[in-house]
Amino acid sequence: MRTIEWVHESNRVRMIDQRKLPGSFEYLYADSAEEVAQAIRSMAIRGAPALGIAGAFGMALHALNCSQCAGADLRANLKDAAGTIIASRPTAVNLAWGVNRIRKLADDRSLPDALITERILQEALEMAEEDVRTNLLLAQHGASLIDDGDTIIHHCNTGGLAAVEWGTALGAIRYAHEHGKKVHVLVDETRPRLQGSRLTAWECGQYGIPYTIITDNAAGYFLETGQVQKVFFGADRVAANGDVVNKIGTYMLSLAAHANHVQVVCVFPLSTLDLNTPTGAEVCIEERDPSEVLSISLQGEQATPAGAAASNPAFDITPHDLISAMVTERGIITPPYDKNLPRCSYNSGLDN
Amino acid sequence: MRTIEWVHESNRVRMIDQRKLPGSFEYLYADSAEEVAQAIRSMAIRGAPALGIAGAFGMALHALNCSQCAGADLRANLKDAAGTIIASRPTAVNLAWGVNRIRKLADDRSLPDALITERILQEALEMAEEDVRTNLLLAQHGASLIDDGDTIIHHCNTGGLAAVEWGTALGAIRYAHEHGKKVHVLVDETRPRLQGSRLTAWECGQYGIPYTIITDNAAGYFLETGQVQKVFFGADRVAANGDVVNKIGTYMLSLAAHANHVQVVCVFPLSTLDLNTPTGAEVCIEERDPSEVLSISLQGEQATPAGAAASNPAFDITPHDLISAMVTERGIITPPYDKNLPRCSYNSGLDN
Repeated sequence: MRTIEWVHESNRVRMIDQRKLPGSFEYLYADSAEEVAQAIRSMAIRGAPALGIAGAFGMALHALNCSQCAGADLRANLKDAAGTIIASRPTAVNLAWGVNRIRKLADDRSLPDALITERILQEALEMAEEDVRTNLLLAQHGASLIDDGDTIIHHCNTGGLAAVEWGTALGAIRYAHEHGKKVHVLVDETRPRLQGSRLTAWECGQYGIPYTIITDNAAGYFLETGQVQKVFFGADRVAANGDVVNKIGTYMLSLAAHANHVQVVCVFPLSTLDLNTPTGAEVCIEERDPSEVLSISLQGEQATPAGAAASNPAFDITPHDLISAMVTERGIITPPYDKNLPRCSYNSGLDN
Repeated sequence: MRTIEWVHESNRVRMIDQRKLPGSFEYLYADSAEEVAQAIRSMAIRGAPALGIAGAFGMALHALNCSQCAGADLRANLKDAAGTIIASRPTAVNLAWGVNRIRKLADDRSLPDALITERILQEALEMAEEDVRTNLLLAQHGASLIDDGDTIIHHCNTGGLAAVEWGTALGAIRYAHEHGKKVHVLVDETRPRLQGSRLTAWECGQYGIPYTIITDNAAGYFLETGQVQKVFFGADRVAANGDVVNKIGTYMLSLAAHANHVQVVCVFPLSTLDLNTPTGAEVCIEERDPSEVLSISLQGEQATPAGAAASNPAFDITPHDLISAMVTERGIITPPYDKNLPRCSYNSGLDN
């Protein structure tokens, strides 16, 4: 099962429509960069690694559709498409990473015009394969931090649905489970869009991982009563000093874990690391539509007064000193993050 | 508007049915102790002060209905009714407080049998009036901690709907607002039962207090970005050392406020103080029906997989060192709480 895939027969992108889960399993198809951007905006597809691939596939669709515009035109045109796609989820660094990796290719003047489109598609497909390999590495490294018998609070959705396959934090939990470790996941529901109770719970069910849904509010109770050994989540952006920008609620969960001496583990591919952002404070936090907050109902009853206003920041910033360990495809990173993260990145000496 | 009231014409109890708000405003009537217990269990009535009065009114209904059982029989019978009512919300100390104040009266052997029922009703009615007076004092004292221009995060519902009138934490905010202080309330929704978005938002609308609904998860973001000056909530039980047992989520909210040097204010009548409980760790936390967690839907769509399990602790424990100030009808209490709370209670020298 792949969350996002290129359909070679028809040159279109197929995505699992995550707005429909867990009620029904449906595919959504995109035939243009704009349709990919729309799928991202509506959160039919979400999750940092998946967004990187969606961005690359969106660019490939645009190149294929741009049949009239060869050469310079295509290059200029791809620049516009890149802007549209990136703007659909501005806080997610992976999306920009995926889009820009394709743009860089198109900007390479040594590449003959006639080959641009073909090379873009080739690159996007390779990125999807890379994502699977990277996430399997994340899962393996992350699982090494999980002990037999652990109860783990997991925030948002970071499973296969957040990537092409495997995912990040939930991938690590799945890997531990599939390799014989007994784990129990406290799946926090993750308001407002409930990616925990909708997607993570569904994935746990698919993999046979024992789980219990809790409200986000309840995490503190389970932590303070000693019922939890680890807290796991992913990241939408990691700043150079190790501050983590992730789904709203990550900060409060991390604070509560830290106060109770419970390990906080953040799992992400290095494409999520943004060394150009010195600290979390510099990240502009996306404010989403208030209707996401206002549109839930409880046992069929309306849950907010008519005309109520709501505020809906999508992410928060977890200061690096609350994070016990970071898991990347290159292994586990511990504090001090401001020293160890740059050392681990693909721009570091390790690549040479 | 009174949340709970004795209807003299028909000797029954009238309550605002809080399960129906904010969609519709409806009254629920109880004619027996069992019906009061049922209203408490189903949360048609909730909130620490209101539960105290509900308990007393339930006892009065039982005494009135017990027409065959005079004297010793009535007294024994009231003991059973007390057990039923208290068991309907075991964590709420006010409920037991209200019920036991009536039981004590019935146990007084100097009271002639023929007068028991009349005296019980008289006492319950007096308790309701006391509640209004006490909560107005709470509101006045609490408002003194609110500055002009404050943005305040408020948890759960602690307004008039949680008491007979006025309420506790929201009463203080209302009092500040009505006395010319400009305040803005960030109403956290308070999963699982959404007392914030359903009841507190509705009350703010009634009083004309500016408010914005946020998810519980988002409180940390508003705190870490310096947008909040105070955090206000009530209490279901306060232990002798100042640990606060309150609606699930209070602990995580308090941690986040404390980490960001934002004042945490807990407002409660002294009937909520339980000096017989040394610390919060001794309190048995009520586990409510998982359906409260599982029964929400998002934009009309099912939000959890079929057959999912959930855990639903109703309260958590906020350690006393996270609380900046406590507001009671006798004034504001600051740390050290283990010294200052007993000194302030009605069992202290202050009464003599």
